[in-house]
Amino acid sequence: MEKAVVVFSGGQDSTTCLLWAQKTFDSVEAVTFLYGQRNSSELDSAKKIAKDLGVAHTIMDLSLLNQLTENAMTRSDMEIDETGEVPNTFVEGRNHVFLSFAAIYAKRIGARHIITGVSETDFSGYPDCRNDFIKSLNVTLNLAMDARFEIHTPLMWKTKADTWEMADRMGRLDYIREHTTTCYNGVIGDGCGDCPSCKLRKQGLDAYMEKGYERV
Amino acid sequence: MEKAVVVFSGGQDSTTCLLWAQKTFDSVEAVTFLYGQRNSSELDSAKKIAKDLGVAHTIMDLSLLNQLTENAMTRSDMEIDETGEVPNTFVEGRNHVFLSFAAIYAKRIGARHIITGVSETDFSGYPDCRNDFIKSLNVTLNLAMDARFEIHTPLMWKTKADTWEMADRMGRLDYIREHTTTCYNGVIGDGCGDCPSCKLRKQGLDAYMEKGYERV
Repeated sequence: MEKAVVVFSGGQDSTTCLLWAQKTFDSVEAVTFLYGQRNSSELDSAKKIAKDLGVAHTIMDLSLLNQLTENAMTRSDMEIDETGEVPNTFVEGRNHVFLSFAAIYAKRIGARHIITGVSETDFSGYPDCRNDFIKSLNVTLNLAMDARFEIHTPLMWKTKADTWEMADRMGRLDYIREHTTTCYNGVIGDGCGDCPSCKLRKQGLDAYMEKGYERV
Repeated sequence: MEKAVVVFSGGQDSTTCLLWAQKTFDSVEAVTFLYGQRNSSELDSAKKIAKDLGVAHTIMDLSLLNQLTENAMTRSDMEIDETGEVPNTFVEGRNHVFLSFAAIYAKRIGARHIITGVSETDFSGYPDCRNDFIKSLNVTLNLAMDARFEIHTPLMWKTKADTWEMADRMGRLDYIREHTTTCYNGVIGDGCGDCPSCKLRKQGLDAYMEKGYERV
């Protein structure tokens, strides 16, 4: 009986991971972290998707993160600016904290597997999306809790096009396209089309379509 | 200009660390975490000591930890029982989370040094007090935030007697004895005398006194 916990935002990547986890493990739960996001559509998506997929869903309040870092993702009065080295949508240490709380939760429910949708390919300057960080955190968490966690990153080396292909091969491309929220402006599905996140998502989908894969 | 952040509870160990940090670094701040502790005396001690020592003091609410773990430290309806392998006062992953938030805070204020009073000598079965864990977390945090943190553990290999000696050599034994709170029942200073924490503290003080050191 292999139990897994998926760090789940309601976006394309973590929804793809949640579907992957359901195919891979005997029992899957999702955890979503609140930290004063700019819009609530992502959370609405997360709730709906978890319900659709029949997954137990825990929402944890980490609004403390918002007190600790100033950035565009959590402050609606700031413009999104991705010209700098690290986008100012960056919440410093965010994935580190999310994965750490996911591990505490996993230990409590007796789950050994933790899944996160981070990817080094669409890296964007976030240090806590890198593979070396994940491997190091895995060791640290096992030492911290005398545990044998295994952190899985099924998207680590995938492009956005690859992730769409993965969704398609699981028969869920249309579902993910329609019900996930990745847009910085909170527009569900294909989004506003203008923000950096929408552009990345669309480029990936276009690239996948152009590769001429059969829809499965 | 070397800045440091001390994880500070208001107890004997972290107060000794705070005094050590003030002698070691140019600028020192203290951070205290709330997570639904059984009593408020520890927080009162922390506030008073930070004020006495002229240290900037930030209190962060991590009551989420209490939702995630069941244990005697944060539930006043449970008896303290230290007969098991890991005391049920244990909040799983607590130090890991405290140090992670301390690091996020340190990065924000431009501090490179993080100090924690964990000790492997009075180990008590807490895996996230061990030296190997601290070293691993140090690497993980540096990868997570593209940082060059240095985590200091001045008490790692000290007994309680050694820690009293350290306080004495800094001329602060009486201050620490009077104003810190380590007692599980929240009695400031020498405490209730009956709980495991008071017994450990007293044993250490007695052992230091018996060693016949000159008071400095």
